[in-house]
Amino acid sequence: MPPEMLCGRALATCLDEIEKFHGFIAPGIVLGGFMVDWARELIDEKVEADAIVETQHCLPDAVQLFSPCTVGNGWMKILDWDKFALSFYDRKNLTGYRVWLDLHKARSFPNLYDWYMRLVPKKSLPIANILDDILTAQRSVLCSCAITITRFYERQKKGEIRVCPSCSEAYAASQGTLCFDCQGKGYFHETPEQPDCQLFHAVVG
Amino acid sequence: MPPEMLCGRALATCLDEIEKFHGFIAPGIVLGGFMVDWARELIDEKVEADAIVETQHCLPDAVQLFSPCTVGNGWMKILDWDKFALSFYDRKNLTGYRVWLDLHKARSFPNLYDWYMRLVPKKSLPIANILDDILTAQRSVLCSCAITITRFYERQKKGEIRVCPSCSEAYAASQGTLCFDCQGKGYFHETPEQPDCQLFHAVVG
Repeated sequence: MPPEMLCGRALATCLDEIEKFHGFIAPGIVLGGFMVDWARELIDEKVEADAIVETQHCLPDAVQLFSPCTVGNGWMKILDWDKFALSFYDRKNLTGYRVWLDLHKARSFPNLYDWYMRLVPKKSLPIANILDDILTAQRSVLCSCAITITRFYERQKKGEIRVCPSCSEAYAASQGTLCFDCQGKGYFHETPEQPDCQLFHAVVG
Repeated sequence: MPPEMLCGRALATCLDEIEKFHGFIAPGIVLGGFMVDWARELIDEKVEADAIVETQHCLPDAVQLFSPCTVGNGWMKILDWDKFALSFYDRKNLTGYRVWLDLHKARSFPNLYDWYMRLVPKKSLPIANILDDILTAQRSVLCSCAITITRFYERQKKGEIRVCPSCSEAYAASQGTLCFDCQGKGYFHETPEQPDCQLFHAVVG
């Protein structure tokens, strides 16, 4: 039986929010919803908790949708480790909880297991079947553990900024006397035809 | 005069969404809303556009709220360059638009300028005054330019995963024969008192 509620909302609302934010009802975010729900239940509600997510795929969106932690407010950090795990911790005393997908438990839900381990081609495994497994399994495929954070707990505050003498934009002073872009480390070149771009160069150039 | 609409929504709805997602109505996200709005107007609506954001502070949340690109779906990449700029581009032909805060133009809006350049202590600059400036300025403090992307355009797909022989969790195979955590590069230690944790070790240990 699917749960009626998840992360303090009706399940249908949860699924709607996932679709709106992420583009579709990704199994990883639904599973992530159960993980966020559990971790936040374990930690005292009054605690202002930061999050660490151990994969950049899907799971960060579950944290952003179902907790106050986002990438832009700096309360969530993302590790590119491809572990389906997340931690919430008290930012004052660094204690909290880690919740992760337990592969041993997941074996009882073949669609979920085959999806996560990529044992079956996408075409042969309809998302609806994976979602059915996830909504049936709920927390039974997860583990949780009390933890103390030893790294990555510092908020990444904005450092000194400086105005680049070449492009006149503000940039992180740590990059040197020119911004990365003007050092040739940028990621684009301008396409000259665009009118506003020419106007800009006429003004500052 | 503040605009009636922003990013296809009533302005009040926009501000509500920002507060709900980010925790408060951060000036950087409101300004970012105007940037996303402009960039997405410049690029053909039919185009499936990916985003690059040039700072990790605030601006990624504007992209996530007001475009289909999120960190979890892989359509948005974040550069830690502290430039208040973003680009949307066609993921097929790599052409698109960059929009950025123009400091020269911003000087006409002292609260906005002093806030962004951190020239005045936070206590002396009420958020309401900064927001007033941003809502009055709208696009007039921004520049846009047509661009072609030359780096960072590849989707970061999930690579090969493997089961760690030590902790039995799945992890990115690129980490080696053990996951980072079991190599001693993790970010937490377990707090032994927690019952579920002991149960887990009893099962798999």
